[in-house]
Amino acid sequence: MYHHVKKLMYTVDVGEADPKFGKMLLEQFGGANGELAAALQYSIQGFNCEDAARKDLLMDIGTEELSHLEVVGALIRMHLKPLKSERDAAEADPLVAIAGGGGVAAYDSMGNAWTANYLKITGDLAVDLRSNIAAEARAKIVYERLISFTQDQGSRQALQFLMTREITHMRAFSAALESMEKPPFSVGIFEPTPSLVDQFFNASTGEGQDGATDYVGPWNHGHGLTLVNSEVKGGEGLDISPYDPKPGTEKTSPADSTPVGAYTDGLGQKQAKLHEKAKRKAARKADVAA
Amino acid sequence: MYHHVKKLMYTVDVGEADPKFGKMLLEQFGGANGELAAALQYSIQGFNCEDAARKDLLMDIGTEELSHLEVVGALIRMHLKPLKSERDAAEADPLVAIAGGGGVAAYDSMGNAWTANYLKITGDLAVDLRSNIAAEARAKIVYERLISFTQDQGSRQALQFLMTREITHMRAFSAALESMEKPPFSVGIFEPTPSLVDQFFNASTGEGQDGATDYVGPWNHGHGLTLVNSEVKGGEGLDISPYDPKPGTEKTSPADSTPVGAYTDGLGQKQAKLHEKAKRKAARKADVAA
Amino acid sequence: MYHHVKKLMYTVDVGEADPKFGKMLLEQFGGANGELAAALQYSIQGFNCEDAARKDLLMDIGTEELSHLEVVGALIRMHLKPLKSERDAAEADPLVAIAGGGGVAAYDSMGNAWTANYLKITGDLAVDLRSNIAAEARAKIVYERLISFTQDQGSRQALQFLMTREITHMRAFSAALESMEKPPFSVGIFEPTPSLVDQFFNASTGEGQDGATDYVGPWNHGHGLTLVNSEVKGGEGLDISPYDPKPGTEKTSPADSTPVGAYTDGLGQKQAKLHEKAKRKAARKADVAA
Amino acid sequence: MYHHVKKLMYTVDVGEADPKFGKMLLEQFGGANGELAAALQYSIQGFNCEDAARKDLLMDIGTEELSHLEVVGALIRMHLKPLKSERDAAEADPLVAIAGGGGVAAYDSMGNAWTANYLKITGDLAVDLRSNIAAEARAKIVYERLISFTQDQGSRQALQFLMTREITHMRAFSAALESMEKPPFSVGIFEPTPSLVDQFFNASTGEGQDGATDYVGPWNHGHGLTLVNSEVKGGEGLDISPYDPKPGTEKTSPADSTPVGAYTDGLGQKQAKLHEKAKRKAARKADVAA
Amino acid sequence: MYHHVKKLMYTVDVGEADPKFGKMLLEQFGGANGELAAALQYSIQGFNCEDAARKDLLMDIGTEELSHLEVVGALIRMHLKPLKSERDAAEADPLVAIAGGGGVAAYDSMGNAWTANYLKITGDLAVDLRSNIAAEARAKIVYERLISFTQDQGSRQALQFLMTREITHMRAFSAALESMEKPPFSVGIFEPTPSLVDQFFNASTGEGQDGATDYVGPWNHGHGLTLVNSEVKGGEGLDISPYDPKPGTEKTSPADSTPVGAYTDGLGQKQAKLHEKAKRKAARKADVAA
Amino acid sequence: MYHHVKKLMYTVDVGEADPKFGKMLLEQFGGANGELAAALQYSIQGFNCEDAARKDLLMDIGTEELSHLEVVGALIRMHLKPLKSERDAAEADPLVAIAGGGGVAAYDSMGNAWTANYLKITGDLAVDLRSNIAAEARAKIVYERLISFTQDQGSRQALQFLMTREITHMRAFSAALESMEKPPFSVGIFEPTPSLVDQFFNASTGEGQDGATDYVGPWNHGHGLTLVNSEVKGGEGLDISPYDPKPGTEKTSPADSTPVGAYTDGLGQKQAKLHEKAKRKAARKADVAA
Repeated sequence: MYHHVKKLMYTVDVGEADPKFGKMLLEQFGGANGELAAALQYSIQGFNCEDAARKDLLMDIGTEELSHLEVVGALIRMHLKPLKSERDAAEADPLVAIAGGGGVAAYDSMGNAWTANYLKITGDLAVDLRSNIAAEARAKIVYERLISFTQDQGSRQALQFLMTREITHMRAFSAALESMEKPPFSVGIFEPTPSLVDQFFNASTGEGQDGATDYVGPWNHGHGLTLVNSEVKGGEGLDISPYDPKPGTEKTSPADSTPVGAYTDGLGQKQAKLHEKAKRKAARKADVAA
Repeated sequence: MYHHVKKLMYTVDVGEADPKFGKMLLEQFGGANGELAAALQYSIQGFNCEDAARKDLLMDIGTEELSHLEVVGALIRMHLKPLKSERDAAEADPLVAIAGGGGVAAYDSMGNAWTANYLKITGDLAVDLRSNIAAEARAKIVYERLISFTQDQGSRQALQFLMTREITHMRAFSAALESMEKPPFSVGIFEPTPSLVDQFFNASTGEGQDGATDYVGPWNHGHGLTLVNSEVKGGEGLDISPYDPKPGTEKTSPADSTPVGAYTDGLGQKQAKLHEKAKRKAARKADVAA
Repeated sequence: MYHHVKKLMYTVDVGEADPKFGKMLLEQFGGANGELAAALQYSIQGFNCEDAARKDLLMDIGTEELSHLEVVGALIRMHLKPLKSERDAAEADPLVAIAGGGGVAAYDSMGNAWTANYLKITGDLAVDLRSNIAAEARAKIVYERLISFTQDQGSRQALQFLMTREITHMRAFSAALESMEKPPFSVGIFEPTPSLVDQFFNASTGEGQDGATDYVGPWNHGHGLTLVNSEVKGGEGLDISPYDPKPGTEKTSPADSTPVGAYTDGLGQKQAKLHEKAKRKAARKADVAA
Repeated sequence: MYHHVKKLMYTVDVGEADPKFGKMLLEQFGGANGELAAALQYSIQGFNCEDAARKDLLMDIGTEELSHLEVVGALIRMHLKPLKSERDAAEADPLVAIAGGGGVAAYDSMGNAWTANYLKITGDLAVDLRSNIAAEARAKIVYERLISFTQDQGSRQALQFLMTREITHMRAFSAALESMEKPPFSVGIFEPTPSLVDQFFNASTGEGQDGATDYVGPWNHGHGLTLVNSEVKGGEGLDISPYDPKPGTEKTSPADSTPVGAYTDGLGQKQAKLHEKAKRKAARKADVAA
Repeated sequence: MYHHVKKLMYTVDVGEADPKFGKMLLEQFGGANGELAAALQYSIQGFNCEDAARKDLLMDIGTEELSHLEVVGALIRMHLKPLKSERDAAEADPLVAIAGGGGVAAYDSMGNAWTANYLKITGDLAVDLRSNIAAEARAKIVYERLISFTQDQGSRQALQFLMTREITHMRAFSAALESMEKPPFSVGIFEPTPSLVDQFFNASTGEGQDGATDYVGPWNHGHGLTLVNSEVKGGEGLDISPYDPKPGTEKTSPADSTPVGAYTDGLGQKQAKLHEKAKRKAARKADVAA
Repeated sequence: MYHHVKKLMYTVDVGEADPKFGKMLLEQFGGANGELAAALQYSIQGFNCEDAARKDLLMDIGTEELSHLEVVGALIRMHLKPLKSERDAAEADPLVAIAGGGGVAAYDSMGNAWTANYLKITGDLAVDLRSNIAAEARAKIVYERLISFTQDQGSRQALQFLMTREITHMRAFSAALESMEKPPFSVGIFEPTPSLVDQFFNASTGEGQDGATDYVGPWNHGHGLTLVNSEVKGGEGLDISPYDPKPGTEKTSPADSTPVGAYTDGLGQKQAKLHEKAKRKAARKADVAA
């Protein structure tokens, strides 16, 4: 259940309205990496989460992002104000001026309507946490660029507040992933094909007009990875011997989501039962507490 | 420049056509986390990348994903074949049957046209690598679920091949990020506000019908994070003292992308020059080699 | 600022999971007239609202719809559960099964990603209230149809709860519009052209194969409206004499939003000042209270 | 069947071309509340309408909106003309200039492609009429804002003509809804839960930084509505006692659309027969007339 | 100006309702190559057309397609009727059943909302005619596939009628293009680079698993085209010597649209004047006739 | 299988960065008729193509368009460079500047995300070739307009190179269609209804304000076509006598795609066998060669 409190999480204080900057700020309201996207991605992941503890985490952060949406909305409204009465300003974003009456709406800086295609929700907790870490990194860099395009102190401070929170969330999501105690590149229940998984394929070769060439780095050499050339470049290509997938070979965590599929060799049912049991235990605890 | 070789990267061998499974497989052709999305995300990031070595990495993997797209397409076509001549099969996906003539097109399993809104491209290398790590994790789990919904051995082996490659790429992207030698949660050039960045905000409280309650975990306690309650729950809320953003306080890497913004205190120009210099050096090396 | 409480607004209790019904229910989660659309339409209108009293109304209902979203999500998750482990069920919605892991996401019953194009937000309070009345009517009929497609008592009762709330909101929005004391068809600040506004144009004529013919009703005859035939049908057509628009001729309300445009003859500034004054008065009252 | 007459419904006469105003005008061609949306919403509702008399109304207005689309298109083309030959003008809307050759296309003022997501079509006449009343109110306010952003007399008069028609249509749709003689908040065939339907839920509380507070108005007090506080604010929350939905409890009209659902207790079939009978009667009348 | 006549262009007569076939038919209502797309593509091209004679052609066909939309809508409604009352049928398309009340709406067979992204409108008459020829070919093949998926005679005959009209239109568009008397591959005002334009680039090489190899055909050998191998395959690649574009080198037609751009060496103005002159002449003729 | 070579197909050389022109150029990167659309349309058609020879053609051109995408991307990046550091430039496209960090992404000149709705893929070779001819004509005119909006010699020459290639492709697609030796307006396997197919319907009549009138041209008179007036204008309308579709009446080519549908009277199976046979023959040839 949600509750709204008539107070902004951060009091917004803007010097002079800057409509074109207001338009830029829409990226953080209705943009691909904005607060609406963050709020909905984490909250819906939270609705789906089978692990009660990390579900709490997702709801905490999802809800905080809703409060950020409200703060960003207030900031934008201050900057967009001139769109209501000045022709010059209105030309900057006729969709906001004519259709939206100068207010905020779920559009980005170029008037694209917000779409759920921005969201990354897989129903697998360990995967979703990775998506969230990346999402927070994107939100951070976007806030930073916005700060770097204005010199209005009030706006900069508000954006610094919001930007900081993204790093907090990034740390929290990382800690949550780590606390699942899964091996570094372990996802799901099927191990990748041995040997093939170590082959880095050199699919781009030659020398560029700007002097670029074939580089060697830890991503294709070392870290257990070896460089494999394609036949086009005189190599032999990847190892394509058939290999049967084997459910249950990948190491899992008790906090892992139930694997999905009809043919998981019962691993799905096992994990589902585990979650039911944990839920019942929590319910008992709750009853006692009540 | 691209070149196509008339050979699939992995030879696809399917037992009996299974149209409804073919429809599921469309997730990996024209779906949000499919091969087209992967190919374009990494390749376009590669077009933008200022760091020549990691640009090579992005082009290598982006190009390999194009080859995967072709393999997945071949696999799907085999499974969708009955849509061409059987009414029952055609009902499963009339868009493919009627508009597409039973072939593949850039749609997902529910007929949604592929959209670039699926892509995460920020022009900041360290951020893009995080997006790619998450993207590979998503692709892995999707392949795994597909494997778990079929018992056709040829299809399972082909999917195992493709799934394995995603883990290889995930490792490569992680190694590339690590090789930039940036601190764990460092993004861009502005440090987050000290103290505020350590506060985890408890925005979801109370006890759920299913016994859920307020959990404590490493994401809100320890790891430098402290739990802060909202005023609604009797807490004081987050520290909202104004704090001026300061460009240049965050630790950067020579491989970092040029910071974006008019007010980066010259850090943008400095980084841009660094990249120009590296480019010229590479060009000289290329001239000597030629 | 938002707060989340770990309790559903309505406890959901489902008999047997019915995956195809669960798919239908997605209309009320991520569909065009669903709870996410309602929550965001009213909340964002609330962010923009200049009239503090009716802003409170918009925030009240917008927030309640968020709680409904959570309830609908819980209901859907129960019905979709078999998608996680049964091939048959998964075929019903492969997007949910394969990409979403069997959980909810912001999609409708046919897998369309939610889009802000569903929202109607004009920044004009009296217009927005009309959009909301219509939105609630749509939500009501959609809930009703869902009820009529299931016989599971728990689901029916949950839907009845949610359906009822839509009528409450419809009444509240209507009362709010009425309380603005504007004439019935008065929108904005420009009066429509006299005489022309009374002409109902008969653009569809003749008799249909099914016996349909040109009907006369209160919408084209009486209520001040007169029927005008097109030249094609031997009439003279609409009155097309030029008429200059005159700002300020339409009757307005003190609760009206500021008119938008550079050429409103100062009406915009006047209304804006009115709102500023009301805001300052409220602030003083708040200071005294504090 | 449709017929086109080579004459505009309103002769457009523009002084000086104003490309940036032309861009604004696109809102009424391919925008969310523009003429294309209006024409298609009413016409498709008309295709679906079971009540022959109000179907005629929908076709009349739907067809008139097509003629408006043509008028708006002509007006826009005059204003966009400079995009064909001047670089400055072309920069205002490169999509129109480069891809569209300076002509109109189904885009709004920010280049968003028109989408059927803008439409509200439920197949329930009384609901659709409410959506249309709201749609006309939106179209009116959009025309008004356009008038307020230009001082070209010819453009203003053309827009006044079109704006006026929206009010005519709004009146016609209202009269049609009224003529169905349904109680004010009656939608469909299920009555809302008594008592619960009278509870207005106070989901947003507290005092805002700008002095906003919890307001009381006719929307939460009086008109049969009572204010209910949430538990978060020390209230008891909404009445959540289970209540079984009962088809046939809501008062209906003979002009009502057939209720949808497998479990409407035969009300659907009854209404469907009613419509078949009315259709046959009309057909007999038509035969006699022929 | 548009007029609607209450009679279908073709009387639809359906045997037994076939909901899943009705769903397929939606491709021709709200699908990418359906009647709505056709009607709008030709009509909007017509609004933009500077050549009065071919503008008439575009309006003729655009308007006929609107009448087809109505016919297809009637056909679909008959087949979708069971969605209103049967759960099984409703499962086939819950969006139509639940949100749309069993009627038609601007969706395709998989529930995708119609989008103007389907349209091809460039404002260049000779290009638009080519797009229309292709569009009619697509519409023809789609109708044909629909015919091949039903055995209901009434439906087949209705589809045969509609399918036939697409071929008529295809012939008319081809005749209109031919009548412009432009050389076969002449588009616009800039000649392509000589010699380079004759080089067919062999970008896909090698032998496929299925025996595919490098084929020679009239598309890369003869017809003035020569085959050029890429450097990857040991060739020299395309001729990349710089060549300055020269406006006015391509042969044009008096019916051609005005070229777009600031730097067309006055060709744009010249063509624009030609059209103005033709318009004035037509107007004089019209005055005399009046 | 794809391979990337670290060299642009055409070396891009730009004088002064022109950000607003860079924005225009995005039409050819992520726009409706741009290189990404071309690359994917032809390549996916190629994946589906049953005729090995013309499949090679589709893969050749599809792959070349990928190389063009890279060239256009490089050109755009040079022009967009100032968006990284200058506020003025960033205002031109905040989506590129703020979200994209000044680099290219799959957006058009107005920030619309690329969508597969741009593509025309029917799985019928002769239809697809027509779509491709039209697509190349559109790409040509778009390049031409871009050339006409810049005077930077390097940009003009690069665009001339790319523009020229479109004409080459247009010629190749035309030759491929011709080589199928099908009659001019023959599509699929069903002949259109005789006589009806010759009737051009006059759906737009009267005289326009600008003197436009009913024109006669080769598209409605001659070429086997006759002009038919609608009943509205005193004609009799189209011939609507029912006519049964007959599979196999249309003349086909051995290179034709397999007809789609359950009721093609075995023509589908026949054609499918033909393709299988051709494939086996090619495979044998390949074995011998190996």
